[in-house]
Amino acid sequence: PPPPPPPPPPFQAADGIRDVLGGLVGSEMCIRDRIKTYWQGEETVSRFQPEPYHTAFPGYVYGGLIASLIDCHATGTAASAKYREEGKSIGTETLERFVTASLHVDFLAPTPIDTTLELRGRVKESKGRKMVISVTLSAEGKETARGEVVALKMPEDFLSGK
Amino acid sequence: PPPPPPPPPPFQAADGIRDVLGGLVGSEMCIRDRIKTYWQGEETVSRFQPEPYHTAFPGYVYGGLIASLIDCHATGTAASAKYREEGKSIGTETLERFVTASLHVDFLAPTPIDTTLELRGRVKESKGRKMVISVTLSAEGKETARGEVVALKMPEDFLSGK
Repeated sequence: PPPPPPPPPPFQAADGIRDVLGGLVGSEMCIRDRIKTYWQGEETVSRFQPEPYHTAFPGYVYGGLIASLIDCHATGTAASAKYREEGKSIGTETLERFVTASLHVDFLAPTPIDTTLELRGRVKESKGRKMVISVTLSAEGKETARGEVVALKMPEDFLSGK
Repeated sequence: PPPPPPPPPPFQAADGIRDVLGGLVGSEMCIRDRIKTYWQGEETVSRFQPEPYHTAFPGYVYGGLIASLIDCHATGTAASAKYREEGKSIGTETLERFVTASLHVDFLAPTPIDTTLELRGRVKESKGRKMVISVTLSAEGKETARGEVVALKMPEDFLSGK
């Protein structure tokens, strides 16, 4: 059998948007692997370095990581975009949480593991509590996956199970 | 900051379909967390016990885990269903790999972390190299997510980057 994966890296506070989110936009991937997100014009950009334990086939990451990254980047983008839309300056007020209503990912090509992955997000639609975010994932300048996430501002009673 | 997540559990060979797949259907989630899959009539069933490091919000798993599990269960179902479709008995020949072309997940309700999750897969379409698999995810008898995966029999040149 293959050797056990190494323990995940220790928690470290991330820079940029993630700091402001304060870990509120859920996903262990966000926190554990220290994804870093920032604005570049009308796009949000995240970079992520895969680890050997993200392997699917030798040399390539597994699809669940890609889905996790796209989900994470999209909910972060939604929260940050809403914040900006409301004219707030980053760091001045708490971001509101967004949760994922649906996630769609098209896998275009195998994604290599030995390079930094880049995610780019864009607001496709913003209406009331709902935001639709489109995300591309690239490795070495080549787009390998594309996603679309419907994110909803988290309802007050979200965790009450109603 | 929250404490670092604990190291993942050591690798252990899984029972059922997963044994036959021999770890070929990619995803560290499959291997690391020892998802176990079997047939029940026309459905494949997997059970999975989340760990504390899969937390999004306290008490609930993060969406990326759900996407990973649905992806993993669906590609396993596709490989196993194709095998069965071709009249082979489990364990007699190597399963062919299936890769994910697209993944869609609808999140219906928060998924609790302190219980065993159940995934049920069904072949919606099987045509040539393509299989469409629908998957439901339930916790304590309540459906919390639903997915659809388009899986393709892995092309010979899949990893050549063409």
